[in-house]
Amino acid sequence: MRGMLVPEGYLFSAVEVGIKHRKRPDLGLIYSESPATWAGVFTRNDFKAAPVLIGKERLRTRETARAILVNSGCANACTGREGLVDAERLLSSLAEILGVSPGEILPASTGVIGTRLPVERMEAHFEALVSGLSPDKAPLVARAMMTTDTFPKVVSRSIPGTKASILGLAKGAGMIAPNMATMLAFVLTDAGLPATELRRGLPEAVAVSFNRITVDGDTSTNDTVYLLANSRAGELPPESWPLFWETLTEVCRELAYLIVKDGEGATKIVRIRVEGAESPEAAERLARAVADSPLVKTAFFGEDPNWGRILVALGKLGLGLEPEGVEVFINEVPLVSRGRGLPEEAAHREMTRPEFTVRIKLSQGSASAEIMTCDLSYEYVKINAEYRT
Amino acid sequence: MRGMLVPEGYLFSAVEVGIKHRKRPDLGLIYSESPATWAGVFTRNDFKAAPVLIGKERLRTRETARAILVNSGCANACTGREGLVDAERLLSSLAEILGVSPGEILPASTGVIGTRLPVERMEAHFEALVSGLSPDKAPLVARAMMTTDTFPKVVSRSIPGTKASILGLAKGAGMIAPNMATMLAFVLTDAGLPATELRRGLPEAVAVSFNRITVDGDTSTNDTVYLLANSRAGELPPESWPLFWETLTEVCRELAYLIVKDGEGATKIVRIRVEGAESPEAAERLARAVADSPLVKTAFFGEDPNWGRILVALGKLGLGLEPEGVEVFINEVPLVSRGRGLPEEAAHREMTRPEFTVRIKLSQGSASAEIMTCDLSYEYVKINAEYRT
Repeated sequence: MRGMLVPEGYLFSAVEVGIKHRKRPDLGLIYSESPATWAGVFTRNDFKAAPVLIGKERLRTRETARAILVNSGCANACTGREGLVDAERLLSSLAEILGVSPGEILPASTGVIGTRLPVERMEAHFEALVSGLSPDKAPLVARAMMTTDTFPKVVSRSIPGTKASILGLAKGAGMIAPNMATMLAFVLTDAGLPATELRRGLPEAVAVSFNRITVDGDTSTNDTVYLLANSRAGELPPESWPLFWETLTEVCRELAYLIVKDGEGATKIVRIRVEGAESPEAAERLARAVADSPLVKTAFFGEDPNWGRILVALGKLGLGLEPEGVEVFINEVPLVSRGRGLPEEAAHREMTRPEFTVRIKLSQGSASAEIMTCDLSYEYVKINAEYRT
Repeated sequence: MRGMLVPEGYLFSAVEVGIKHRKRPDLGLIYSESPATWAGVFTRNDFKAAPVLIGKERLRTRETARAILVNSGCANACTGREGLVDAERLLSSLAEILGVSPGEILPASTGVIGTRLPVERMEAHFEALVSGLSPDKAPLVARAMMTTDTFPKVVSRSIPGTKASILGLAKGAGMIAPNMATMLAFVLTDAGLPATELRRGLPEAVAVSFNRITVDGDTSTNDTVYLLANSRAGELPPESWPLFWETLTEVCRELAYLIVKDGEGATKIVRIRVEGAESPEAAERLARAVADSPLVKTAFFGEDPNWGRILVALGKLGLGLEPEGVEVFINEVPLVSRGRGLPEEAAHREMTRPEFTVRIKLSQGSASAEIMTCDLSYEYVKINAEYRT
């Protein structure tokens, strides 16, 4: 993690509990040396995991937080009342060691659904977890969050004109869409902002970053974004808030990009950009229809400029598109003009790159939207057919 | 095709034109020796292929038909004005040879999108096509319709208490959903019914058969169901119509089953049954959400009773389901009770079968729906990444 900026006052630690029998850290802790105002955004899936239910409850009742406890290997989802009791007990035990209130620790879990957390085994590692806290272990926490991720995701930025910085950690991999997914992201800053401002702005930043990516159209039980601001670099004056949000959105967008890049079995990153739609909602639906079509995604994998499949995906929504009003470009290369295919060789060459943009120009209006997706490979099937075996 | 019933007065023929360089018949003709009343149901995709536009126009203007001309290898979709001219010219040339009006021939095409039909090459085979007409070549026409299908799909039934019968031919394979897909089905009967009755009933039969299957959630430019009734076995009295529709729906359901069985790369047929939903619409949306989830479908391929993924798919619609109100069964084996997982060994054993049912019992109401789907295998990716190469 060359050039990683770590905001003041945050400490990190991770240990290996063996929650799912893996040989790498699977329990992570982020600790703020002073109380931080915070915000959270959570999955909209009906079946919310225990840590999500607890996080949402904290959001209703607490303006400040001191720590985030995260584990991989077990989602603590669909575990009913017992799952809630497990999570609360862990937070209480940890709070005692940290000398904070349990209500100041935010929980997050990811991994297999329907299994219970090995509470006692986790508790047995808490002393080591806390004694290991240090400012330089953020990458280790990012590693402890991983499930089928193949690399840890860490992004940092300084906030221009201030001494403050923003650090983001995330995990993703499968089930990334339509609203976040088995996705965890923790964003930390030493700027100081009121909780009300954090809670106003975070959903907007999430809407244009994590909610604009898709791997397979599923949404998990555990999706969580936490944002902490501990003001160690001073309170940020309101006139600097727009710049703060701009920088934070950049961090979230970069994390979202890394999540797609590490999409299960992904070999290509593809931006689906729809322009000239009737409304922003229509633009987004159309972009998602293309981004989630298995036929389109397998064509990306095959580097096949199969524009027919792109039109099929656009047309299936029945929004009244006219073939004559559709242009498609791969990067800058035209592939479809007035609904008709053009010679494909140049477009095919663009598709051999690891990243490209499919730009779809309609003639229904002036709204646009962009969704980032990846291809669908043999490896995706392999990972997901064998996940629990 | 042991025991195939061929309704009176229908002749069939198929020839090999080499539309897409394949060594098998790719141009088929179905001819009725006398005028038949008819009905058609077509794709709702915005980008309708030329044969669909022509079929829809025929539906508005003609009560009777004499023939169906079908080709594989080229969908004649996204071919603009020229595609329409191509198709009209083919129908005119054929009409002359058959001695009927061009308006009495119904067109259907399937295959690659965006390429033109080799009109002259096809016309050069028309004499042979017509001179080859015989009552016993229905399976050959079913073969000429195939694209990535691995077997021809032919189903027949007699209409109880009458001398009439129903014969159905279909092709499917990929892009089967949500409303039909690159799916063609031709249903022929020697019963006699008025066109108005055929046009009233066919959409209903399609709704509970072809529209209840899904392979990959895409809908094609070319989906077409034609129903012809030539009354060679006599006019059917209105009191027998319900029995006719019952038999026809059986034929359509059986064809739909064969289409899923032959889904691209499919190794399992899975029925997703949702019970206890708030409304029929909610039941269908929930069943489709499970049936179309790539994570669920890869778990089927892996024979993994990963009920967490089923709950995730149900929950992502945000319909307000309560975990405690969800039961899941694989065939008769309970897998989830009150939202919690049960031991999985017996459910896993059921999933090793080539066909099984996932029954989801909710507690929101009394509506139910069933969608038939298949698993998502390596082979699906292979077929669709390499389709045009």
